Amino acid sequence: MPPRVLTGIKPTGSPHVGNLLGAIRPALRLAEQGLDAMYFIADYHALTTVQDPKALRELTYEVAATWLAMGLDPDRVQFYRQSDIPEIFELAWVLACFTSKGWMNKAHAYKAIVAANEGGGEADADAGINVGIYTYPILMAADILAFDIDLVPVGKDQVQHVEIARDIAQRLNHICGSEVLRLPQAKLEDNSAIVPGLDGRKMSKSYDNTIPLFAAGKQLKKIINRIVTDSTPPEVPKDPETSTIFQIYRAVASPDDTRAFADRFRAGIGWGDAKNALFERLEAELGDTRSRYDALMADPSKIDALLAQGATRARKTARATLDRVRKAIGISR
Amino acid sequence: MPPRVLTGIKPTGSPHVGNLLGAIRPALRLAEQGLDAMYFIADYHALTTVQDPKALRELTYEVAATWLAMGLDPDRVQFYRQSDIPEIFELAWVLACFTSKGWMNKAHAYKAIVAANEGGGEADADAGINVGIYTYPILMAADILAFDIDLVPVGKDQVQHVEIARDIAQRLNHICGSEVLRLPQAKLEDNSAIVPGLDGRKMSKSYDNTIPLFAAGKQLKKIINRIVTDSTPPEVPKDPETSTIFQIYRAVASPDDTRAFADRFRAGIGWGDAKNALFERLEAELGDTRSRYDALMADPSKIDALLAQGATRARKTARATLDRVRKAIGISR
Repeated sequence: MPPRVLTGIKPTGSPHVGNLLGAIRPALRLAEQGLDAMYFIADYHALTTVQDPKALRELTYEVAATWLAMGLDPDRVQFYRQSDIPEIFELAWVLACFTSKGWMNKAHAYKAIVAANEGGGEADADAGINVGIYTYPILMAADILAFDIDLVPVGKDQVQHVEIARDIAQRLNHICGSEVLRLPQAKLEDNSAIVPGLDGRKMSKSYDNTIPLFAAGKQLKKIINRIVTDSTPPEVPKDPETSTIFQIYRAVASPDDTRAFADRFRAGIGWGDAKNALFERLEAELGDTRSRYDALMADPSKIDALLAQGATRARKTARATLDRVRKAIGISR
Repeated sequence: MPPRVLTGIKPTGSPHVGNLLGAIRPALRLAEQGLDAMYFIADYHALTTVQDPKALRELTYEVAATWLAMGLDPDRVQFYRQSDIPEIFELAWVLACFTSKGWMNKAHAYKAIVAANEGGGEADADAGINVGIYTYPILMAADILAFDIDLVPVGKDQVQHVEIARDIAQRLNHICGSEVLRLPQAKLEDNSAIVPGLDGRKMSKSYDNTIPLFAAGKQLKKIINRIVTDSTPPEVPKDPETSTIFQIYRAVASPDDTRAFADRFRAGIGWGDAKNALFERLEAELGDTRSRYDALMADPSKIDALLAQGATRARKTARATLDRVRKAIGISR
């Protein structure tokens, strides 16, 4: 049996070009590498911050359609929606009973909000924090442990999540005196390949500097024209490595096209021409994906059907895990 | 439609005579009063402290058998096991996302443990606290809100639980802009009728001073002989109100028998005779109940079948609530 890997996709923003390199392509490669890959849309994680029903519903479809359009093959991998697996939530309660509150107090995301509250002179360190935000590492542990996951691909800032899942599983196994839960390992991903956004900083929804994956035509052109450049004259040779335009181009283009584009920079290229080249490359590289995306979004019931099919399969594993856990803690009949 | 009331039964200790007056009889009276009564065994609440699978399994059967033996009629009321209703746990996650962490910080039970830690010179105020203990008011809110409960009978110390459930429901309703969840009300019960234990303090598992409901014969006699008395000679008239023996007697006996027993106290009664009278009264009052209890415990599969039947019915309500909630927050398909 190949190791089983799990990738969670939180529908908190519309997919953008930065997600391509940072998340989607490396994640899809896991299946190509022969791993037993599972992907899920973490809609109930998004609920900690997205409390607008229309937005949550649409974002869920958008990310599902994006991953499918990008090549996720639901016949080859498992693809499901977290909210379709009730076993995860029951397991999360069990895990909560085996989780020291002190571990949650030390979770990075929680500590960051507390620090911001305190730094901002807020009298209540817990201001604006709901219990979902505070306990999400436990739900994340349930996401992982319910499926006997071996490896969880993570960036450096997420290693702690997998460590917490291991700690909880180890404590439950220890108290129950048997290997009830499989211990997952973090698979540290090199996410140094950061795509810059329109302003040169990392492309991120929170900086409002993204190129949406499925913007097209005039809209896309307008967005690309917002890329910040300097006043270097066209004929002056340019270092591609310091250009936002080049780095975004490289994120989507083939190595050959990328090399050719770098040569044009070194020979001297006007920013307008460079932006045009990027526009055309994005249109060419993403055209097919965009058509698949548009077709899926035109009839979301197809997405629902695919996700429901994935959930049926995934639930079998989650059910088996939960039955094992219930027996071990004395809840079974 | 009569108001719907909910009673939770936490299987953390073997039922004792103190439970009779304090919980079981008043709770069973709700159904007789024409209310739409639901009763559930809160086995997943017990998990916050009972982490011995054998104990949890046995205690669950013991409390189920006790309530059935005491007259709970599963055809007339709803009687189910919390762990048989997966909708509760999914709802609990939703509610967590609408619960300020600050509300949990103020929960009485949590604050009491923190105070004990700090008073005991413990460096970590959260020492020994698992996340289940910290967040159980949210699970309790889900227990209530999943079933559109109108009234929750509580003692003074539990009013806060119902208030938290109301607060969470109000916030979710407010954010979703509709009356998604029914707001429950606390029904304050007079629990001044406290049954004393063997040492005269309130009968409680934590004081190790209980008379188990289903102790019988020699075992029961031995326990009753442990009731603390003073050295007043037999012939001296005694005030029944200050006697532990009399108060336990009153908890189980009819008003007529109780009056007659009080007269014997005033006329002068030896402690040995008083203990014998209590022993005989307990044997007489609890004999039938004990037979029913023993029969149920001899074949727990009957208990399982009854609880499963109750769960099937209760899940319909919980499912409808959860579907309503999912639609309101944007999780539905």
